[in-house]
Amino acid sequence: MKARLITLEGGEGAGKSTAVATVRDWLKAQGRTFTETREPGGTPPAERIRALLLDPETGDLEPLTELLLMFAARAENLRQVIRPALARGEDVICDRFTDASMAYQGYGRQLGPAPVETLAGLVHPDLEPALTLLLDVPVSVGMARVGRRSDQRDRFEQNTVAFLERVRQGYLEQARKHPERYLVIDASQPLEQVTQAIRQGLAERLS
Amino acid sequence: MKARLITLEGGEGAGKSTAVATVRDWLKAQGRTFTETREPGGTPPAERIRALLLDPETGDLEPLTELLLMFAARAENLRQVIRPALARGEDVICDRFTDASMAYQGYGRQLGPAPVETLAGLVHPDLEPALTLLLDVPVSVGMARVGRRSDQRDRFEQNTVAFLERVRQGYLEQARKHPERYLVIDASQPLEQVTQAIRQGLAERLS
Repeated sequence: MKARLITLEGGEGAGKSTAVATVRDWLKAQGRTFTETREPGGTPPAERIRALLLDPETGDLEPLTELLLMFAARAENLRQVIRPALARGEDVICDRFTDASMAYQGYGRQLGPAPVETLAGLVHPDLEPALTLLLDVPVSVGMARVGRRSDQRDRFEQNTVAFLERVRQGYLEQARKHPERYLVIDASQPLEQVTQAIRQGLAERLS
Repeated sequence: MKARLITLEGGEGAGKSTAVATVRDWLKAQGRTFTETREPGGTPPAERIRALLLDPETGDLEPLTELLLMFAARAENLRQVIRPALARGEDVICDRFTDASMAYQGYGRQLGPAPVETLAGLVHPDLEPALTLLLDVPVSVGMARVGRRSDQRDRFEQNTVAFLERVRQGYLEQARKHPERYLVIDASQPLEQVTQAIRQGLAERLS
């Protein structure tokens, strides 16, 4: 079976960590070998870029700078982690990928889709996810979950409701454009139902 | 008089710092108001990107990551420093700019010119330097100067002679392609002659 890049996407508080565990367990049950990574990050220099991106001390960044930093980290993760794993025949579970850049910088920061597409063409012209699992949740629900989690919010969790609404709409817009690749999960449901919906979607798309 | 972006370029140990002082003094003598900046850097987040790029602890970076980080810093410096200064009618002296990305990442790291041109088109489609002063020095001379300066070499100063040769040839190639914009100074001459050559070049090109 061809190795597959499986990406997980969603706004703040959508429950991505739990969903990653669900995907992991499903692949294990299928007897698949896989590698897990996350973006921005996945390699030591990419994690340094992540720290710079998330640290509230970094302050305001130009939206284009933020986008370029995301792709700088992505270039590392692709070359060091994702491509080698796929070449070994392993599936890859990636917590966020280029769709996150489209949603957060393209829509959220309002750069528009063009620069994101230009950079995707530069950094991974030959690769896109086999499946993108979008955990969709209303912004108010996501924010309430993040609020319960911690007093220490990162640069992205500190954003306004309007920003997070644009991010959500950006994700939904991409899901409409690429239905063959996207699996949209209503993540406002109770956890058990979310997990069940993910398992069912994986079985339909990846078995 | 139209505000001008004046960039200084050159390999390690070419004497850029002294040349910046020469340009500064010349502009002052002409009664011009100007802003000084450097790349990568020039704003607090861009200086954080610089630190990541120069720190030997960062280790090997994918060449494309290095290039994207350079342009991430550049996007900050352009929006926060360079464009506002030009808009106020001030000249800008910038210690390295996109030609450095072409020489170091395009030629030195052998990415080729295409990704550098793509990123320049994304980050400053409408702006290029009015004058680029290239301090050209044989690699052996530059390395001997850097060697005298310090035991603590940064990630770029640690590169091999072959890398630095490619950087030098990259700069000279760009100077051949853009003679209207480039002023090439033989920086292996004694300091006094270098300074004299810069002053004369500035007078011819910018008066």
